[in-house]
Amino acid sequence: MRLNCDLGESFGNWQLLDERDVMPFIHMANIACGYHAGDPITIVQTLRLARQFGVAVGAHPSYPDLMGFGRRSMACTPTEIQAMLLYQVGALRELAMAEDLALNYVKPHGALYNDMMGDETVLHAVLAALQRCRLPLMMMATPRNDHYRRLAEDYGVGLIFEAFADRRYTADGRLQPRAQTGAVLHSAEEILAQVHALCAGSVTASDGRRINIEADSLCVHGDNADAVAMIRQVHAQLE
Amino acid sequence: MRLNCDLGESFGNWQLLDERDVMPFIHMANIACGYHAGDPITIVQTLRLARQFGVAVGAHPSYPDLMGFGRRSMACTPTEIQAMLLYQVGALRELAMAEDLALNYVKPHGALYNDMMGDETVLHAVLAALQRCRLPLMMMATPRNDHYRRLAEDYGVGLIFEAFADRRYTADGRLQPRAQTGAVLHSAEEILAQVHALCAGSVTASDGRRINIEADSLCVHGDNADAVAMIRQVHAQLE
Amino acid sequence: MRLNCDLGESFGNWQLLDERDVMPFIHMANIACGYHAGDPITIVQTLRLARQFGVAVGAHPSYPDLMGFGRRSMACTPTEIQAMLLYQVGALRELAMAEDLALNYVKPHGALYNDMMGDETVLHAVLAALQRCRLPLMMMATPRNDHYRRLAEDYGVGLIFEAFADRRYTADGRLQPRAQTGAVLHSAEEILAQVHALCAGSVTASDGRRINIEADSLCVHGDNADAVAMIRQVHAQLE
Amino acid sequence: MRLNCDLGESFGNWQLLDERDVMPFIHMANIACGYHAGDPITIVQTLRLARQFGVAVGAHPSYPDLMGFGRRSMACTPTEIQAMLLYQVGALRELAMAEDLALNYVKPHGALYNDMMGDETVLHAVLAALQRCRLPLMMMATPRNDHYRRLAEDYGVGLIFEAFADRRYTADGRLQPRAQTGAVLHSAEEILAQVHALCAGSVTASDGRRINIEADSLCVHGDNADAVAMIRQVHAQLE
Repeated sequence: MRLNCDLGESFGNWQLLDERDVMPFIHMANIACGYHAGDPITIVQTLRLARQFGVAVGAHPSYPDLMGFGRRSMACTPTEIQAMLLYQVGALRELAMAEDLALNYVKPHGALYNDMMGDETVLHAVLAALQRCRLPLMMMATPRNDHYRRLAEDYGVGLIFEAFADRRYTADGRLQPRAQTGAVLHSAEEILAQVHALCAGSVTASDGRRINIEADSLCVHGDNADAVAMIRQVHAQLE
Repeated sequence: MRLNCDLGESFGNWQLLDERDVMPFIHMANIACGYHAGDPITIVQTLRLARQFGVAVGAHPSYPDLMGFGRRSMACTPTEIQAMLLYQVGALRELAMAEDLALNYVKPHGALYNDMMGDETVLHAVLAALQRCRLPLMMMATPRNDHYRRLAEDYGVGLIFEAFADRRYTADGRLQPRAQTGAVLHSAEEILAQVHALCAGSVTASDGRRINIEADSLCVHGDNADAVAMIRQVHAQLE
Repeated sequence: MRLNCDLGESFGNWQLLDERDVMPFIHMANIACGYHAGDPITIVQTLRLARQFGVAVGAHPSYPDLMGFGRRSMACTPTEIQAMLLYQVGALRELAMAEDLALNYVKPHGALYNDMMGDETVLHAVLAALQRCRLPLMMMATPRNDHYRRLAEDYGVGLIFEAFADRRYTADGRLQPRAQTGAVLHSAEEILAQVHALCAGSVTASDGRRINIEADSLCVHGDNADAVAMIRQVHAQLE
Repeated sequence: MRLNCDLGESFGNWQLLDERDVMPFIHMANIACGYHAGDPITIVQTLRLARQFGVAVGAHPSYPDLMGFGRRSMACTPTEIQAMLLYQVGALRELAMAEDLALNYVKPHGALYNDMMGDETVLHAVLAALQRCRLPLMMMATPRNDHYRRLAEDYGVGLIFEAFADRRYTADGRLQPRAQTGAVLHSAEEILAQVHALCAGSVTASDGRRINIEADSLCVHGDNADAVAMIRQVHAQLE
């Protein structure tokens, strides 16, 4: 079970987090590509840190919305989504290659990720783009992994499924909306228990039922001190 | 002698020119990469047209200034210039590869081009970037080509020299500033005579002296009807 | 019956239309404010032309999406919409005042306009913003004008209703989607007949029924030569 | 002697500093207007905090360069600078008026501020803009205050002179470049001594000479914990 984290999300003068606190404890860095965060200098710095700690590098493309940090859904056409993805992936890949790093996968960001999981038109656009740039897609593990595997196979695109250690799942395998009480796990005990369960391929949903969530990776966050501390604990447990 | 033209300089809803009028008559398309013009959809359309007419594709990166169309010099550091160039080159290269096209060279745009020609700190930053992405640089042919060749060799970067068919040269091999009378050639006769001279490796400067300008390519423009008509005439003459 | 037209929609080097062809024939100019089009220089030029021809000036604010020309719906919160509207209105108002022009009204652009007409949460956000900046709102005339008047009264905001001379209405008073055959009227005869009908407060819908559309203004377009020619004909008919 | 501080310099998801730590101790807030920082929501939040603590509000406009935080000089024409200033001032003024706050003055940001102090063409463009929007200009106090007062009088623009508590001055009244040793004062003792001197209208330059610096306001910074602590000390000393 590998840990992935969204990184490179500073922009110019604005620093989101000190990535040196996070990079030693993760395995995969999803690096912003300029559309919601990540100016070229920020990208280079994150790439160098990833190289230093042997962390695999993925692209973290977004809708074009710096002001909204890519968190607002935008009514883009499939053609626009495809072209935007390739643009961002290429920008990051060139900077990675200049640092002697390969680009390993793509994980869409924010609203684009949510739209991809909720609207198969968007998912098809993402898969069509990744078919062109020959990279696997990181998406959310749900009880319907097989369905997504079949879709992706038509495009010759590999899938990496990720799960969330600190989010409560609903019985149908979605994340409980953040607005609801209990949607985010805060205690280390609960989170580490969920990590343990996810490593065994399942999770306890909000209604107490056990559901299958087969994940290749766990998504962790580094945007506050508590989150960073938790990454270390999850990392230690996985070891 | 090959013709190059700045293309892909539309943006979203704004169309700069109808590239179908130009593409059949040129050999190299310098395609904007998003910083001064060129959204991903525009880039894809220009790439497809280039492929249709067998036109070689180059990146046309810029300072980040959509509002100023990349024509305003910006005090960027060499580190910033390098990272910005790689970002833009990569974005274009990925979209080109998705269209089964190779990226062939890089020609900086507007103020970045001028700064590169006038300030060797900027030129070194450009060369360092192109060393990393292994592409030749298109720059302005002057009587000092050899000097630039030596600089570029240190970086292992090839050079493509371009000249201007419709601009008056000064005796030191620079372009006469546009604000001055006679700086831009308008009559077909004058332009075709300058094309003829450039093919032979020289040009008549504003003071009547003959200077050496050894160029691999001629830069033509497609942003108005007269310019487009001129491209056809120059193309016919070269044939 | 006054004619309104979306103007100031150039951006930097990109010219959308020659506004001198349009300004003499309209009464109200909806001027882009920078979020989908309209850099400060473009705005000043459009304002000066409006002043020259005695055309009333309105703000034409948008979602922040230059690349999509404000035509893509974005999931902005009411708080974001309010603040974005005031930002754009203020920018335009200051430039107008510097040209000794008053700002007279606000007409949202593109996707924001559509969202306002289709989602009352958005409409309330728009009204709350206009209450703060004390300007009337231009919105689409439908058979439900009274309903909208009551909503706007709660905010102390005046309404200007506009209708479309060249678009087919459905029986419930909406515009027929552009994708459908017959949605856009092309013949001068049809358009002028619709202008005549709208001046009398009604229009023939796509199913042949007559519906009430009470409009204060007609929206005309200037983005192609045919459209510009049509403005003159509509203007002549109104005279 | 009043304290001014650059605020509202967050952008979307990026928080630059917690302004609640600073606002109680200053008298004038220079609020970013969207070109180098400051999305509409950020602006509103800063305005509300300013109102809560009775802090005067000024506009802090910039060159259009989010990625470079307005710190890179851009070759803008005087016409562009004027229009950009009015655009930003108006955007902020409308949001301020919606919060029942008046806009009191304008202090250009970063590279625009430096260019204004170093190039009278830029200063004239700024003054021409402020003449139109009828606001005083905050600029750097130097031994040449009278010269600047005469220039500003021609435009009918008032001046507010600011000095820097934590920067070493050169004998000609400029700030010592940051790259040089000793350019920034770090010890509380030195800073408070300079505050004391500036309140009396002079300062000890880097060569030990005493020069006249007559300032109406002191510029303080809030972008790190040390700086915030220093604001409180300076504030206490002034009391």
